[in-house]
Amino acid sequence: MLQISEKATDMPASAIRKLVPLSDAAEAEGVKVYHLNVGAPDIQSPDCVFDALRARCDQLKNISYTNSAGLMDLRRGMAEKYYKSIGLDVSPDELLITEGGSESFSVAMQIVANPGDEIIVVEPFYTNYKTFAYLYGITLKVVQTNIRDSFAVPSMDAFEKLVTPWTKAVLISNPCNPSGKLFTKTEMLQIGAFCKKHDLFLISDEVYREFCYTSEPHFSALSIPDCEQNVILADSVSKRYNLCGTRIGCMVSRNKHVMAAMLKFAQSRLCPPLLGQYAALGALDTPQSYFDEVRKEYIQRRNCVVAALNQMPGVFSPMPYGAFYTVAQLPVDDAERFAKWLLTTFRADGETVMITPASGFFLTTGVGRNYARIAYVLEVPALERAMAILARALQEYPGRTL
Amino acid sequence: MLQISEKATDMPASAIRKLVPLSDAAEAEGVKVYHLNVGAPDIQSPDCVFDALRARCDQLKNISYTNSAGLMDLRRGMAEKYYKSIGLDVSPDELLITEGGSESFSVAMQIVANPGDEIIVVEPFYTNYKTFAYLYGITLKVVQTNIRDSFAVPSMDAFEKLVTPWTKAVLISNPCNPSGKLFTKTEMLQIGAFCKKHDLFLISDEVYREFCYTSEPHFSALSIPDCEQNVILADSVSKRYNLCGTRIGCMVSRNKHVMAAMLKFAQSRLCPPLLGQYAALGALDTPQSYFDEVRKEYIQRRNCVVAALNQMPGVFSPMPYGAFYTVAQLPVDDAERFAKWLLTTFRADGETVMITPASGFFLTTGVGRNYARIAYVLEVPALERAMAILARALQEYPGRTL
Repeated sequence: MLQISEKATDMPASAIRKLVPLSDAAEAEGVKVYHLNVGAPDIQSPDCVFDALRARCDQLKNISYTNSAGLMDLRRGMAEKYYKSIGLDVSPDELLITEGGSESFSVAMQIVANPGDEIIVVEPFYTNYKTFAYLYGITLKVVQTNIRDSFAVPSMDAFEKLVTPWTKAVLISNPCNPSGKLFTKTEMLQIGAFCKKHDLFLISDEVYREFCYTSEPHFSALSIPDCEQNVILADSVSKRYNLCGTRIGCMVSRNKHVMAAMLKFAQSRLCPPLLGQYAALGALDTPQSYFDEVRKEYIQRRNCVVAALNQMPGVFSPMPYGAFYTVAQLPVDDAERFAKWLLTTFRADGETVMITPASGFFLTTGVGRNYARIAYVLEVPALERAMAILARALQEYPGRTL
Repeated sequence: MLQISEKATDMPASAIRKLVPLSDAAEAEGVKVYHLNVGAPDIQSPDCVFDALRARCDQLKNISYTNSAGLMDLRRGMAEKYYKSIGLDVSPDELLITEGGSESFSVAMQIVANPGDEIIVVEPFYTNYKTFAYLYGITLKVVQTNIRDSFAVPSMDAFEKLVTPWTKAVLISNPCNPSGKLFTKTEMLQIGAFCKKHDLFLISDEVYREFCYTSEPHFSALSIPDCEQNVILADSVSKRYNLCGTRIGCMVSRNKHVMAAMLKFAQSRLCPPLLGQYAALGALDTPQSYFDEVRKEYIQRRNCVVAALNQMPGVFSPMPYGAFYTVAQLPVDDAERFAKWLLTTFRADGETVMITPASGFFLTTGVGRNYARIAYVLEVPALERAMAILARALQEYPGRTL
């Protein structure tokens, strides 16, 4: 019998995206859905992006391949304009343009680990780490945290206990998708020392670096002293400039073996998208005022959402200090069932909300079953309305536990 | 010791791209290099592409994610404008937008085969089939052909002999990169019947479909009767509209299990590049006259190159009937050594040529060692000059075997 592979059959579907058909159906019926589910902000991209693209349209003869590592102008620009502006000393040779942050960390996982090897992650973590670990036959080992503790990183003992001869790396996202947790400098130094001690790579996914809401600057893994060879940075222009659809990110590492391996992987997909590279090149001229405005806006949005959540009976959300998400504990039997019910059944004056059930961000069985990830990617009035709808839904949901 | 994975260490480097640093160095010295090495044509993209992009730049607020399967407008447009125009009845549900043809066939390989499974390929074949087979732990089994026979597909006995309980698919490129071989309708029907008989998938990479130089229309795997469930088509807008850098392709299959699996893979990389999708949408309005002109141009280029090659002492090139490549047998000890020598040492009045050693397109040991792939992607006067340089180089090369 003609059959697809077990690998494809057993592959988990994206927790974030599998509700999409239900929301499409609701919208087709004329229901207004407030999308708190995807990290796709409504913020305008900087004007310099479109100016750069228009200029290219007038000059281009065709849209050709670039070097597999990306346009040298973009590599140089990222190193000399962007990284320099945030105090990181990166040379173009230490930087390779990828198809979004996704390609960067997914290839990094293969560069550090063979099938059967292990990578340590801190729970909750970005759901596609699990997808790629599955595809590459890598086992994820989990450091547990606690929502009541704001998902603080526990003592290094929790990491030490997970080390085996097969452990190859620690993989974190900082600020964290889904929890909005911002790793402190102290935490980063400890994780760096742990990686150094056990000869592990540290894959640091920092695509939300521009979204930090403390007075301290973001502390990048690249800044950990004496850890140069261990660190692999996954980065992206997606969130920084509201260019998610360009599919342009980068990998940064000072480890020459890592970069040489990355180039081989990059060659297999020929090149990163040229038009997205041009957009990213244009984005390098974004004025600081753009980031200041965006940050101010997100602080308002966060404050609005977190306050509203904690006012709902039985709901708890810690205060996130980075990214544009929070993970909230809900008084429901099962957040996935609740999210489906919101899309298929519940209507508040013809409106509803879409949230992401958070169990996909956990590996430990049972943990996160009544948690949801809320992306605060709408304007404050829309968020206020969405929170009111959510509050009402929690009162009416048949599977409520209060 | 901190070490990258064996998987990354042992991964083969791209045969096509590993000479790039040498050509960069030559060009940095002021040497003019005629690039016969990459399938990156110099032909202008249709005007409607840039018109569409300009219009989007004026409308867009930001560059956001699309559905993982691509924009519905593009899926519909490809089905209803492009595939319909070439006589193929495809519905948008049977079509998913990919990151170039590369993502399409590389995911198809994983959808049909587990690690340890086998896929049958016809030699010579596109070098990245080998790369992806390596990455996914799939074994390629090879049907050999003969350059003197114009790489004709041998009798089905050659395929039958390779079948084991682990065989899952046949993978072809038609027209073929690197050989320019065009599969005849008879060959396609035989391969289809073979796949049907053994319950194998047929992955058909048809990214060069628009480049056929016989009076017969291209015979797509989708046209094989009674083989609907077996066929997975890998396609791309790269070559068709000279949009290689957009990284937009598609997978087409009437097999619902295949498409459902493809969507899971697609979700893991979030979405195909938006700007490239807009370019591809614009390209759907390309007038037939564009393709007629391009085809006429390539026939002239092919005739120029193949005639010139066969006039060189000891050189043999069959006549290719598709794509824009030919594989030529050269009177040299080793085509890779020769290609390097061309870039590092040989100069004809300050000029040289870059060719692709063909051994990367073969798996059978020793075969193809003195073959090169020549891409006829320059205008006729440049090709004439490049052929004159190649002829002179073959006379002077220290490792010549004539």
